[in-house]
Amino acid sequence: VILAGGSGTRFWPASRRALPKQLLPIAPPTGDPFDELGANDSLLARTVRRIGPFCPPERILVATGKDLLDQTRRALPSLPASSFLAEPFPRNTAACIAWATAVIARATPQALVMALPSDHHLVDVRLFHSTLERALESAEGGLITTAGIPPTRPETGYGYIELGGEIEPGLHRVARFVEKPSLPVAEQYVSGGNHVWNSGMFFFRADVLLGAVARHMPDLARGLARIDQAAAVGPEREEAETTRVFEALEAVSIDYGLMEKLTELNVVTASFGWTDLGSWASVWELAQKDELGNSAPADVLLMEAEGNLVRDLGGKPRVTALVGVRDLCVIQTDDALLIMPRERSQDVRLVVDELRRRGKDDYL
Amino acid sequence: VILAGGSGTRFWPASRRALPKQLLPIAPPTGDPFDELGANDSLLARTVRRIGPFCPPERILVATGKDLLDQTRRALPSLPASSFLAEPFPRNTAACIAWATAVIARATPQALVMALPSDHHLVDVRLFHSTLERALESAEGGLITTAGIPPTRPETGYGYIELGGEIEPGLHRVARFVEKPSLPVAEQYVSGGNHVWNSGMFFFRADVLLGAVARHMPDLARGLARIDQAAAVGPEREEAETTRVFEALEAVSIDYGLMEKLTELNVVTASFGWTDLGSWASVWELAQKDELGNSAPADVLLMEAEGNLVRDLGGKPRVTALVGVRDLCVIQTDDALLIMPRERSQDVRLVVDELRRRGKDDYL
Repeated sequence: VILAGGSGTRFWPASRRALPKQLLPIAPPTGDPFDELGANDSLLARTVRRIGPFCPPERILVATGKDLLDQTRRALPSLPASSFLAEPFPRNTAACIAWATAVIARATPQALVMALPSDHHLVDVRLFHSTLERALESAEGGLITTAGIPPTRPETGYGYIELGGEIEPGLHRVARFVEKPSLPVAEQYVSGGNHVWNSGMFFFRADVLLGAVARHMPDLARGLARIDQAAAVGPEREEAETTRVFEALEAVSIDYGLMEKLTELNVVTASFGWTDLGSWASVWELAQKDELGNSAPADVLLMEAEGNLVRDLGGKPRVTALVGVRDLCVIQTDDALLIMPRERSQDVRLVVDELRRRGKDDYL
Repeated sequence: VILAGGSGTRFWPASRRALPKQLLPIAPPTGDPFDELGANDSLLARTVRRIGPFCPPERILVATGKDLLDQTRRALPSLPASSFLAEPFPRNTAACIAWATAVIARATPQALVMALPSDHHLVDVRLFHSTLERALESAEGGLITTAGIPPTRPETGYGYIELGGEIEPGLHRVARFVEKPSLPVAEQYVSGGNHVWNSGMFFFRADVLLGAVARHMPDLARGLARIDQAAAVGPEREEAETTRVFEALEAVSIDYGLMEKLTELNVVTASFGWTDLGSWASVWELAQKDELGNSAPADVLLMEAEGNLVRDLGGKPRVTALVGVRDLCVIQTDDALLIMPRERSQDVRLVVDELRRRGKDDYL
């Protein structure tokens, strides 16, 4: 199950309502031969390709919003039409993962499921594959399992997982989930060695997850049961009932709605160079850069320019020239241009808010 | 005679081979009711409108390059076709002014002529008009007359005129023309009060100028005589001979080739807020700015941005957002984007040189 319903604004002007982050080709090549084929693909396409060795196309479900269905299909031309699940309303990850799992469980009640975000990046594809193997093995044993990344810096933008008892090297019980920490707390987590970043990936047997939903999110479980009954009648009834059920569901993350309530959960830890690519600054950090620290397409003219990120996601040929500027993000599309210091990347939301205030919805 | 043959690169990406500075709408409104009508017009169109009270359209000659003729005509739709003179080869201002004057002298040997650059800006249109009156009066008396502006800063990018004997307040003989000075010298000029900026405007009787050309530029005078003889035969012969003559002419400015050699020359001085608009930085200096020093179209989003010049000379709607940047020039056209600190404005030529080196002639 690939979660592809996001609608972030942190990558404006590249990301739009109709073109959210996971559909953008913003991650750098990893140098891994497996990954290299489509290094310019969207985050979503690369996510799907990465799980190729574990999952044939017909066993992949991509869950996205109704309004993003067409673009999402186009981004994954190798998947059959049956691979796409369209959420009638956005109801966060708990509803989405549980629903997709219920759909899988109709045919295969004990199916082994991976639920993966589609808008993250990782560098070490081999290590990721072996992490998937270990996580699936743990899930097969009956415990919901997540993946955690040993922190390499005191990141305050991520959730953390506190490690519990070690089962074997690299596999622990989860002690607890921790919200985004303050900087001093994050620094303790890094030096303490007992916390990992929460990657948002989950591995489980379908019956195990649905059992947990039944215990801890009874409203959601009842809704899913109604959808199952409607599906037994036929696809039209199923669609109508899904719409009714989703409209009434609470929007809650699976971490908050379910995982934090479970007493037994495993976490596989591995340093496969994971990042959630949270801003243009993080795109620059990951990107290949010239000797002056610029990451820009080859045809951009850089004259005494240092530390800049330049991206043109428009479709038309044009020339961009930077003279004597430092540490800027310069992002173009066919109808928008954003210029800001890299360190102000989080403030893209100011622009999005202001566009909304001015009623410039065409640019959102 | 309006000199409209320029082909500067200092306003790239707005200025191109096919769209030189005088065809760009880069000067700010002056607030003068006379000027306000077309405050968004090109520098050339505003130059022509400013002399309206002195010269009916059929007495205006706009001299431009052959390759710029179409755009120049389009920029001045109110002028008749007979108003345009196309130089077959660019040969600087001496050839251009003398040629245009010879054309005028065929019908009116003692015509009073103003020769004005088309790519400058001035603020006080009333004072400019009274300056023209005085300059024409002086020219009518038989001396070539120029206009000088008392310097308001030690500008090293302009030529200066050293004032000679005062004829009456605001009218002097020219002591000598001075090339662009060093900063210490320019500072002396400003404090000394005996030097004015050379505006490049000249006022003269046609016979006086042509007499001076005959004495000091005999090759040019001979060429003009050949063109006159061909013109007497017919327009086709005239055009062919003009091409032949221009090809062989030396390219030299009228200051260097003629004016500096004359012993008697007048200069009218007046502070009408003249500038040659030499760079994007000077556009910013003259422009109306918001309270944070930004000059940008109203639909540009400025979030904690200060001191920036933003211009979009493209034809398509798009949104531009600046977050937290200072003192930049951000210039867009439909096929190019330039970003540089204002203080680096002179380095636009680096970009133009680099584009040429890369063979990207489409963008020049």
